[in-house]
Amino acid sequence: MADASSPIWYDGRLAPLAHFAPDPASDTPLYKQLADAIASSIERGTMRSGDRLPPTRELAGRLGLNRTTISAAYAVLEEAGLIKGHVGRGSFIANRAASATEQRVDWDAILPPIEMPHTHAANRIEISFATSRPSEENFPVAAFRRLCKQVIDTADSGEILQLGSPLGYAPLRRFLLEQGPAREGDDLIVTNGCQQALDLLARLFGSSGVVLEDPVYHGVARVFARSGANVLGAPVGGNGLDVDALEEIVAQHRPRVLVVTPSFQNPTGATMPLASRERVVDLARRTGLVLIENDIYSELRYAGELRYAGKALPTLKELDGAGNVILLRSYSKISFPGLRVGWAIAPRAVIARMAELKQTTDLHSDQLSQAVLLRFAQSGELERHLERTKKQGAERLDAVLAACKRFLPQGATFTRPEGGMSLWVELPGPLTAERLLSRVEERGVTFLPGRYFAVKRQHARGLRLSFGGLAPQEITRGVKVLGEEAAAQLAEEARRAVSEPAPALV
Amino acid sequence: MADASSPIWYDGRLAPLAHFAPDPASDTPLYKQLADAIASSIERGTMRSGDRLPPTRELAGRLGLNRTTISAAYAVLEEAGLIKGHVGRGSFIANRAASATEQRVDWDAILPPIEMPHTHAANRIEISFATSRPSEENFPVAAFRRLCKQVIDTADSGEILQLGSPLGYAPLRRFLLEQGPAREGDDLIVTNGCQQALDLLARLFGSSGVVLEDPVYHGVARVFARSGANVLGAPVGGNGLDVDALEEIVAQHRPRVLVVTPSFQNPTGATMPLASRERVVDLARRTGLVLIENDIYSELRYAGELRYAGKALPTLKELDGAGNVILLRSYSKISFPGLRVGWAIAPRAVIARMAELKQTTDLHSDQLSQAVLLRFAQSGELERHLERTKKQGAERLDAVLAACKRFLPQGATFTRPEGGMSLWVELPGPLTAERLLSRVEERGVTFLPGRYFAVKRQHARGLRLSFGGLAPQEITRGVKVLGEEAAAQLAEEARRAVSEPAPALV
Repeated sequence: MADASSPIWYDGRLAPLAHFAPDPASDTPLYKQLADAIASSIERGTMRSGDRLPPTRELAGRLGLNRTTISAAYAVLEEAGLIKGHVGRGSFIANRAASATEQRVDWDAILPPIEMPHTHAANRIEISFATSRPSEENFPVAAFRRLCKQVIDTADSGEILQLGSPLGYAPLRRFLLEQGPAREGDDLIVTNGCQQALDLLARLFGSSGVVLEDPVYHGVARVFARSGANVLGAPVGGNGLDVDALEEIVAQHRPRVLVVTPSFQNPTGATMPLASRERVVDLARRTGLVLIENDIYSELRYAGELRYAGKALPTLKELDGAGNVILLRSYSKISFPGLRVGWAIAPRAVIARMAELKQTTDLHSDQLSQAVLLRFAQSGELERHLERTKKQGAERLDAVLAACKRFLPQGATFTRPEGGMSLWVELPGPLTAERLLSRVEERGVTFLPGRYFAVKRQHARGLRLSFGGLAPQEITRGVKVLGEEAAAQLAEEARRAVSEPAPALV
Repeated sequence: MADASSPIWYDGRLAPLAHFAPDPASDTPLYKQLADAIASSIERGTMRSGDRLPPTRELAGRLGLNRTTISAAYAVLEEAGLIKGHVGRGSFIANRAASATEQRVDWDAILPPIEMPHTHAANRIEISFATSRPSEENFPVAAFRRLCKQVIDTADSGEILQLGSPLGYAPLRRFLLEQGPAREGDDLIVTNGCQQALDLLARLFGSSGVVLEDPVYHGVARVFARSGANVLGAPVGGNGLDVDALEEIVAQHRPRVLVVTPSFQNPTGATMPLASRERVVDLARRTGLVLIENDIYSELRYAGELRYAGKALPTLKELDGAGNVILLRSYSKISFPGLRVGWAIAPRAVIARMAELKQTTDLHSDQLSQAVLLRFAQSGELERHLERTKKQGAERLDAVLAACKRFLPQGATFTRPEGGMSLWVELPGPLTAERLLSRVEERGVTFLPGRYFAVKRQHARGLRLSFGGLAPQEITRGVKVLGEEAAAQLAEEARRAVSEPAPALV
């Protein structure tokens, strides 16, 4: 009786007997060959207690053997206590005491622990301020399709499909180098987004002292924590990195590296004014501090005066004459995050080491996306998309600032970004972001609480609102819920303070 | 006189004055504001000695200032010794002694050294046995174009462009999990080719003891050397990994991990027979050894009996009942190396940690390529491409084996692969691969010498011939050159041994 559910014979994924081939020329009789093969599968654990063996007729047919050979093999195995026959139901692998010699790998013992990510409540989330990413409905999908087809129709699409260089797809590298701001002696490497550039650099700088902005995007904090760096935190305010505090840290701890996002920092959205930028570059020049400049948001400016002769604020890289700056940029935040293409511009000695490490890491970045994004930039579509994004961003920024002003409780403070995707709220005591979060998630709203961005400080009252992917009316509605729940919680706390008598001293 | 070659003003990449904006409302006079800005650029190093300042008329026009203001600023700077005027030629930044306070970063001192890669002679290389990659002219570019267009025309191409999961593009993951051989409790992660899976695993296992095949692909050796693993080498012969030697190593050193390529190992092309595979799995089960199974070549079988009930040899993963195996696969070797898509199948505890690390490494793999390769596999085009590749591979394998037999000097040995892309030659003494290499490169032929694949042994007489990307007649011609040069060198050595008298003992 064939049984299609038999777990041994029919399960294509395991089929432990599928590789057994009886050898009629062998000195070992066929029934013994089969019994040995099954015993060995049981020993190895590919056949397990409770598994049903194929019916003898069925197995005989499959292996091209006589049915009596199969029966003889099963008899030997039953004799040895390895299988057990049940009349009318067939033969099954017998229970056996766990082999004393079997060593199952205890992965939790030998691998590093998993950090618990932030998990949202089971509630349905309707408005999420949690992700710093562009809005999907704004993607220029039609242009992407057209350009992508152009790329794959080019004669050199065969080149894209062949093994490439760890430095990146040559036509894209040339284009990006022309765009600047590379200096003489600089070079450029294409990475899988900015995150990979940070990972490569963290590994190259090893256990050096590294100053991070505090609060900072958790992807930055984790990559340096993991690399074994000696991490220090420098506070970030409404005007970005606190340079006074940085100078003290540098004087006291002599760190090797500063990682800084001068424009629209994540999570605060804050931007460093020109004077702060110059001070940081001067500090680097005087002390040999290496500056890793994370510049993935600067093109997303929606508001604010362009006071600098009609130009955007200069990058640290442009202000730097000493060659201390490693500049990181990316197409992810300004075009399609799903295509992983970023790049680093830095002195050749740095790029050469990043390329060497990248080669052992993943050989090179995906070339199809590099070619498509090059075409996207060269065709002018990127520029057009940016204009639309900025127009939309301005509306969203207005909405979030107006809503914060209107709905957040008295005593709350928030940054006033002029671009980017996020702003930072500090709640008044005794509120905490965690408690507020559990309340607003009940009402379908979520955000990331401050501890998620902690370097050395806890930021228990801080929270990030990422508004880049939400429509203005969603933003308004979401912040209103935040404000209502904060007010309700404040009122509860006030009642509790009044109604709870102090414990009697007995 | 405007001068378009002026390096300060006109070079759009630097333009140190481009961010200067005179403030008429300030207490500081305008000429002083300008002089300060220039002095600060010089101090920072963005204007350097010898740089020419813009002509006063030109700068006045650009900044909207009076020309006398510019002249006054230049006079102040000249007074301070910072610039120097040359009649008729303009003003230049003066030489200044290198500032005592400037700290240029000494990258070589703070970053790890760069390993010198193998560099070919300046000669024109016509036949390269150096790269283990598929042949380009065989790429099914037309099918690729068609399927790529289908993918970008699908309604969900917006999803591909948005931020994805570190585990991979969901439809591809589902497809690969159905393909097997995942067991209950296993999970799957998509990586940027197999190389990234190795890198993630090397980082997770940290300083554990790791056994590598010796010789082995240098990308494997370097990734574990870099991660700080305690690396051990187990010899590889014509039948793959030497299991006797492995058992001794395990007994003596108790390593945590074995990295093994059971089918068509790189560089030897050797394949482990079923009995060896079973022994390795048994060893792992008894000792708790983790097996990282690199299975990127197994589908490229061109010859040899399929003795196992008409099926390919089972992977270690299929033979393993204890859950000790981490299986690595990739589309790179069987389709397009330029699209970086590989995957790992392993117990959930392992995949969860790989995903967490991948998220800090580069968030996720590029989704466009994942979607295109999924379509390539589902449409049957991958299967058709594999059939053509195997037919072509068989001709190339025949050519390289015949040429080795015919042209290599007496005493040389070579592996007899039945698939893959490479074979391994051992030269007879006193020949060495390095000396032979410099001779054959003179004649336009190259290969990778044994030291490139060294783990613990030097392999001075070993060399890898990668035949996968060469036409049969190129293979024959290339091996003929190898044989001729080896013979010539042997003859020279023999003459030298005869003609060079022993030095007189005086």
